Amino acid sequence: VPDLVAGARAGEARAVARLISLVEEASPLFREAMALLAPDAGHAFVIGLTGPPGVGKSTITTSLVTAFRARGSRVAVLAVDPSSPFSGGALLGDRVRMQEHATDPGVYIRSMATRGHLGGLAWATAQALRVLDAAHFDVALVETVGVGQSEIEVASTADSVVVLLAPGMGDGIQAAKAGILEIGDVYAVNKADRDGADATVRELRNVLRMGAGAPAAGQPSRWVPPVVKTVASQEGGIIALVEALDGHRAWLTQTGALTARRRGRAAAQIRAVAMAAIGRRLDRLGDATRALADQVAEGSLDPYTAAQELVELV
Amino acid sequence: VPDLVAGARAGEARAVARLISLVEEASPLFREAMALLAPDAGHAFVIGLTGPPGVGKSTITTSLVTAFRARGSRVAVLAVDPSSPFSGGALLGDRVRMQEHATDPGVYIRSMATRGHLGGLAWATAQALRVLDAAHFDVALVETVGVGQSEIEVASTADSVVVLLAPGMGDGIQAAKAGILEIGDVYAVNKADRDGADATVRELRNVLRMGAGAPAAGQPSRWVPPVVKTVASQEGGIIALVEALDGHRAWLTQTGALTARRRGRAAAQIRAVAMAAIGRRLDRLGDATRALADQVAEGSLDPYTAAQELVELV
Repeated sequence: VPDLVAGARAGEARAVARLISLVEEASPLFREAMALLAPDAGHAFVIGLTGPPGVGKSTITTSLVTAFRARGSRVAVLAVDPSSPFSGGALLGDRVRMQEHATDPGVYIRSMATRGHLGGLAWATAQALRVLDAAHFDVALVETVGVGQSEIEVASTADSVVVLLAPGMGDGIQAAKAGILEIGDVYAVNKADRDGADATVRELRNVLRMGAGAPAAGQPSRWVPPVVKTVASQEGGIIALVEALDGHRAWLTQTGALTARRRGRAAAQIRAVAMAAIGRRLDRLGDATRALADQVAEGSLDPYTAAQELVELV
Repeated sequence: VPDLVAGARAGEARAVARLISLVEEASPLFREAMALLAPDAGHAFVIGLTGPPGVGKSTITTSLVTAFRARGSRVAVLAVDPSSPFSGGALLGDRVRMQEHATDPGVYIRSMATRGHLGGLAWATAQALRVLDAAHFDVALVETVGVGQSEIEVASTADSVVVLLAPGMGDGIQAAKAGILEIGDVYAVNKADRDGADATVRELRNVLRMGAGAPAAGQPSRWVPPVVKTVASQEGGIIALVEALDGHRAWLTQTGALTARRRGRAAAQIRAVAMAAIGRRLDRLGDATRALADQVAEGSLDPYTAAQELVELV
């Protein structure tokens, strides 16, 4: 493990890959790695990309890699698949567009399966980001592959969250229900050459403006998320998106929100590991749990009382 | 609370509604109700309905209500919205088709918001089902409103899970990734008058057959989920769907899988409440957690060691 950590610090892709595999497999070895990786925490600026399936996340990710590389930043891409038990390159093999970066040593691309990961999706992602911090990537793009609430969970590991929508998808009620109007720091309406793009942008801006008011408790000022339009084949939108991200990063730094966010994330992670450790202790009480469950299923005990008995056993 | 429970047992819709609101609000009063409701556990046969947005879940739910009512069963519908903080009738107000059942005393329809519910979505649903058990509903249909992984969570509260798909949506990779091919006991391809319905049915059957093999450990036999075609305006498909559900219920009962499933669910519920109780204890250690988080964010401590310190404090 110390060799792998040293390798990652030296920027060796193989060492980075091996350490992320340890996270993925929830290997006990990773615990040792974590202690060694601690001092590198926070090097990479983490950008989360989320949005409904089919909105063009991987295309935008690729364009962002190109844009950040043009500035000389070292860029890592983590494609997190919360539903797949399979890891490795299968998914990325399909990503023909990503291939243009495959031979660039300043770019590291990795898909990660987190299904069934004990500490949960956000936890696994956060640990993989630690490895990328150690390997001194300047920017880490975290993109979810798949659907649902888990995207929101991954977004919670990022410094800036980009929510991608497509024309027509902005449709107020659906978007609000998916919770994505609460998590974005920057919104991009992709495929903006399609009909309805302007309407979607307008609607989004209205909804986001409604949310703008007094800063939240403990926040020095409030960030009103900008909405940009992007088209895969046109560079202009990506420039606007990168500028919006720069603006958010500057705001985060100037207001101290970056430190606050990262501390909050660290607290959530510590809590998650603590809960997972306690969960493992509960799992060792399988026989007691089954006996209580039989009583609950029969109706001779209620689940609250049963749970209390279980807590007392831990 | 004892009056409400007595009211629910007498089938009073208002008492049922009030008790489910206590679940929704995570009211401490509900704990008392749980003890009183324990003996009624397991009365209703619980059917979960899940599938991507736009597939026609509420239409199928309404048709199933009609079919079960025709047999004289008392039917409850729980529309669970995992993303909404709002409860009550707003959502169901839109459901014009449901209105035909609105005045039938043998039907109870209720939407439930579970966002931010401490014990989680599955837990809140399970508790609401306890109330419906006590009110002696024969069938409880649990339908999710919204998107994502949470549907799978709700499905985990059901005796039989119906997965709805539409032509074209069966597209192997997407469906497999969403995990829905593992949770269905019965599959229905809705809107089956559209192009591609037969191809979707064929593909689904192939994928489901591939999964058919030796029974899982501890299972007496393996259930191969049937695939039926439904069209909202035609009764035939609904009859086939109800027959498929009857077949699954008979299999569950004959093999003892129903009891095993319900005991497994009870165990999961007890564990969830125990974890929530421990989580609340952790939350009371906010200052300690923040101090540890600052060290992790600075890089002077790793999250595992921090978590261990936190566990020792509980």
